Amino acid sequence: MKIWGTRDQGNPVRVAIFVEEKGIDIPFEPVDLLNGEHKQPAFLAKNPAAQIPVLELDDGTCISETVAICRYLERLFPEPALMGRTPLEEATIEMWQRRVEFGFFDAARAVFRHSVPFVKALEPVQLSEWADLNRPRIVTGLEMLEPQLANHPFVAGPDFSIADITAVLPLRMLDMLGIELPDHCPAVARWREDVLARPSVAKVLTPPQTAS
Amino acid sequence: MKIWGTRDQGNPVRVAIFVEEKGIDIPFEPVDLLNGEHKQPAFLAKNPAAQIPVLELDDGTCISETVAICRYLERLFPEPALMGRTPLEEATIEMWQRRVEFGFFDAARAVFRHSVPFVKALEPVQLSEWADLNRPRIVTGLEMLEPQLANHPFVAGPDFSIADITAVLPLRMLDMLGIELPDHCPAVARWREDVLARPSVAKVLTPPQTAS
Repeated sequence: MKIWGTRDQGNPVRVAIFVEEKGIDIPFEPVDLLNGEHKQPAFLAKNPAAQIPVLELDDGTCISETVAICRYLERLFPEPALMGRTPLEEATIEMWQRRVEFGFFDAARAVFRHSVPFVKALEPVQLSEWADLNRPRIVTGLEMLEPQLANHPFVAGPDFSIADITAVLPLRMLDMLGIELPDHCPAVARWREDVLARPSVAKVLTPPQTAS
Repeated sequence: MKIWGTRDQGNPVRVAIFVEEKGIDIPFEPVDLLNGEHKQPAFLAKNPAAQIPVLELDDGTCISETVAICRYLERLFPEPALMGRTPLEEATIEMWQRRVEFGFFDAARAVFRHSVPFVKALEPVQLSEWADLNRPRIVTGLEMLEPQLANHPFVAGPDFSIADITAVLPLRMLDMLGIELPDHCPAVARWREDVLARPSVAKVLTPPQTAS
């Protein structure tokens, strides 16, 4: 088994943290995005969507899409559970994972791709109006998490889960995007520090530039 | 158990088809989006993201996010399986579900929300440039499905699954958006007819306006 993608960049980060939390060891193989390796036939045969990460099994079967890869690993290595044990836990964690993904991660990614100059290599048409429309959605997405995080240590409840992992990249990106955590979101601020200081996260990523 | 949302409109359609395929009976309760019922405190207590559908359990517990609701129902009513049985089936179906969701559904939704005049009530700022950027992505998303559908009856392989259900709304929307299926995608055209004519889909939705 191996994972295509650079361990500390982009969506492969999510799988790398997941793997660290499971305490398993899977090698990562870098893919040269800047030179378009992901658009070459050899890579498209692994993932026609031309995206990393891809989990390649020993028989050559390839699974892409971060959350699908994580679910496969969750089935093979159930402990510690990061996607829930009971049907209700599973649905609750999936609900929060998707709320973070669509409400916060997507908005942060839109601002990143459509306003940060060096991203132009990956996003040829940058639409500053689209970035402007999404900037307030980052804060709205965080505000939605505040009541939940005021009552629970992690996004989906008592335990660290894939929902927290999905938040890592956009949480680290806030400073670069010029987004400040609102004063009325102290629980989000506490959670951000906890998540970014977590051993699995620190092992995959270098520490963030600025303390929150 | 009940589901908040109108059975034949928006994302509740996906849950309604899922429920039909399972052969179970769960009542749907309409939510008056045009008058902002989803932004009132009573509804926000069920889903702070202000979105339908929401599955409310008999004890008042609420699960939102379409795919999380479906996964909960899949656990309670495993047959017929719509999200896979083995770890590899589960990951494969989730991969294709997400490819359809991010590669085709998202692009169609962006064009719908940012170019169709009557949607203005739900999307106050319509950005025609964002619609223009997403229009070709609809076709790219379909082209990615062609080789898979040339070799398999359904998106995720031999069996109808949640990945096909995710495609129903954007497939029906193509005519309204002025998107023609490319000639080099005959398998997509065959699959579109199959999926839209499927009894569960026909039962939830009135027939599409135009044959493909």
